[in-house]
Amino acid sequence: MVDIATRVWNHKWKIDPIVRSLIDTDFYKLLMCQSVFRNHRDTRVTFSLINRTKSVRLADLVDEVELREQLDHIRSLSLSRGESTWLRGNTFYGKRQMFTPDFMDWFEHFRLPPYHLDKRDGQYELTFEGPWPEVMLWEIPALAVLMELRGRAVLRDMGRFELQILYAQAMTKLWEKVERLKRIPGLKLADFGTRRRHSFLWQDWCVQALQEGLGDAFTGTSNCLIAKNRDLEAIGTNAHELPMVYAALADDDAALAKAPYDVLSDWHEEHDGNLRIILPDTYGTAGFLRNAPDWLTQWTGIRIDSGDPAEGAETAIAWWKSRGEDPREKLVIFSDGLDVGRIEDLSARFRGRVRVSFGWGTMLTNDFIGLTEGDRLAPFSLVCKAVAAEGRPTVKLSDNPRKAMGPEGEIARYKRVFGVGEQVERDVVV
Amino acid sequence: MVDIATRVWNHKWKIDPIVRSLIDTDFYKLLMCQSVFRNHRDTRVTFSLINRTKSVRLADLVDEVELREQLDHIRSLSLSRGESTWLRGNTFYGKRQMFTPDFMDWFEHFRLPPYHLDKRDGQYELTFEGPWPEVMLWEIPALAVLMELRGRAVLRDMGRFELQILYAQAMTKLWEKVERLKRIPGLKLADFGTRRRHSFLWQDWCVQALQEGLGDAFTGTSNCLIAKNRDLEAIGTNAHELPMVYAALADDDAALAKAPYDVLSDWHEEHDGNLRIILPDTYGTAGFLRNAPDWLTQWTGIRIDSGDPAEGAETAIAWWKSRGEDPREKLVIFSDGLDVGRIEDLSARFRGRVRVSFGWGTMLTNDFIGLTEGDRLAPFSLVCKAVAAEGRPTVKLSDNPRKAMGPEGEIARYKRVFGVGEQVERDVVV
Repeated sequence: MVDIATRVWNHKWKIDPIVRSLIDTDFYKLLMCQSVFRNHRDTRVTFSLINRTKSVRLADLVDEVELREQLDHIRSLSLSRGESTWLRGNTFYGKRQMFTPDFMDWFEHFRLPPYHLDKRDGQYELTFEGPWPEVMLWEIPALAVLMELRGRAVLRDMGRFELQILYAQAMTKLWEKVERLKRIPGLKLADFGTRRRHSFLWQDWCVQALQEGLGDAFTGTSNCLIAKNRDLEAIGTNAHELPMVYAALADDDAALAKAPYDVLSDWHEEHDGNLRIILPDTYGTAGFLRNAPDWLTQWTGIRIDSGDPAEGAETAIAWWKSRGEDPREKLVIFSDGLDVGRIEDLSARFRGRVRVSFGWGTMLTNDFIGLTEGDRLAPFSLVCKAVAAEGRPTVKLSDNPRKAMGPEGEIARYKRVFGVGEQVERDVVV
Repeated sequence: MVDIATRVWNHKWKIDPIVRSLIDTDFYKLLMCQSVFRNHRDTRVTFSLINRTKSVRLADLVDEVELREQLDHIRSLSLSRGESTWLRGNTFYGKRQMFTPDFMDWFEHFRLPPYHLDKRDGQYELTFEGPWPEVMLWEIPALAVLMELRGRAVLRDMGRFELQILYAQAMTKLWEKVERLKRIPGLKLADFGTRRRHSFLWQDWCVQALQEGLGDAFTGTSNCLIAKNRDLEAIGTNAHELPMVYAALADDDAALAKAPYDVLSDWHEEHDGNLRIILPDTYGTAGFLRNAPDWLTQWTGIRIDSGDPAEGAETAIAWWKSRGEDPREKLVIFSDGLDVGRIEDLSARFRGRVRVSFGWGTMLTNDFIGLTEGDRLAPFSLVCKAVAAEGRPTVKLSDNPRKAMGPEGEIARYKRVFGVGEQVERDVVV
């Protein structure tokens, strides 16, 4: 029996909104936002969307009107009462009132600032300018909208039955991965797949699959909305944008060299326990650790987000040992370019040597590789980064020169200041 | 939004009926029924359900009350007006009015006769006795009910999410088969999977997958209800029950030797073209062809339903050649134990030598092998056969001694009369 009311209702939608909530974003954005709100409320920044996979010509695939409709819809969102209650009342990382009343007051009245949209060379130029705590919240919804609109452009050509097969295949594929992950002793894994997900509904399904298949080995999701809806832990700490903006604000080389530690010093005041996770690669891991102050060795762990992950973890272990720490009490979080094979290898290699957990992203929530002709649904490397702060360009080096960002001259200066030598290039898959 | 009316309605069902239509049966049952109705209306027969896979203890798995409810529901069915119109008005095998007005008058008033149900050694003993045209129509629904109840017994223990994964995997598995079948040049394939299907809905989905994936290579389905609903060709000709009952009715060895040809002589009067398909293996293919009258060489083709299929086809080709026929004008229908690998092999072997088509059954509509722990959904070998006619036991030899049926003494007599020597044993998978 057709439910006529439902059918008529569905026809009334002008668009099918991709992002329907301000907390359909990564938890660490909110943690960072609060930190920025406290320490750099008035700093003006520019965020910019960058498609590192030039072969995916987004402006040819995605209709501009449709994109604007989705972005405008996101600008219309505000925190719902239930969302606010959840953020205020929930326990995050074992702590009540993670978000302070003054931050929540601000967030309850928050709307996303305007965007600037142009086309060039088959790509969209999408930028956001304004106060840092406002602009930074565009990152995840902007990425999610473009990823999903690209997907919809491909799915539009497919028949009803083809779609059913597609999702059956994608489910089967993910479940095969879950079956392999199940067998890894002591696994700890979280969903980090919001930004490059195939779609919201698919990410939500992937999270359910991990819940169902992995039990306690699944530690939670970075996505606040899904964490709220499914009563899961919201997972995440901090990201490159903090050192990138702090560094851009530094007035001279001495201040620049100090900037990454200033970030963590601010963080140290605000958070403890499992939120004290070092992200050391923004300007080269080796130099960062070599010059790190002693109080950083007390932190709980390190997140490895570029370069060879095993090497990164070995560097961290060696550093802890050199500073008299027992690595077996420390945590290494792998979050770059993960799929099941690498998760298995890294688990085996570091078992008993250091605590390990995984933030699994794109290959969890967007592995449609091989499922369409011409692989038109394969994930691609889209990022949304702080490119300027107070009119100065930002720079990222990371442990992989292919992930470096910023003007050439500034990159050279940063390399000098941070003592970064030769780096090994690694393919950026996603 | 929950449709409360639908939900309440669904709760009101006392049972979820497995067979909901008298034409949810194989087309050849109706063709044969009409032939029997014309030639042997009052012959009394006994049909009996036999589970050749003793390890599947149906009586332990399937609740007797539930089984009776399903069988009683089937007895309550009668031909709907739309079904009758379709049978009367549709073109089958290019022919209008395949079913005669007197047969249709009878069928419109038809209800299935009573059943007898007992339990022994963990198995159900389910038998049907009465006039041949009535009893024979129990075969397919009885099989479908027991196959699906066994499936339901297994599925009952599975969670909502597990079920979603299960069907996603089964769809993916079937679609991989379709992708392989697509690449076979000149393929002609029909669904013969009603009797051992996982469920009605699953068979219906499998048919859609073949439609979607194979296009013209998919020639139709043996299931009349699905053919009607999806506007497909209904496919099928005749089965072993005709020679088995004709043979049982024979009064002496001479009449027995003649019985299989009497079947085809009656059929010859009733049908032409693609319905003139010889099923030669009931009492051994080699002897049957050796002794066949010349008019049989004019028939369109041969269906190979036991023994080594390639050998069976070679035997048929050699026979046609020995009788001056051009095998390239003839049709071989393979319908026993098929899966994609065998379909590929047989297609390649006989390409250009004979026309080939496939009646794909259990591994199309019930390949859940490997998808549950302990393989509790794997198909098993359930048959429903004519075991007696006018009080005399029936016998089937086939080209595989493991498929032989009947009392030992009678089997020996039949082997002598039909000149069947040594036979090669082959596993009966499904």
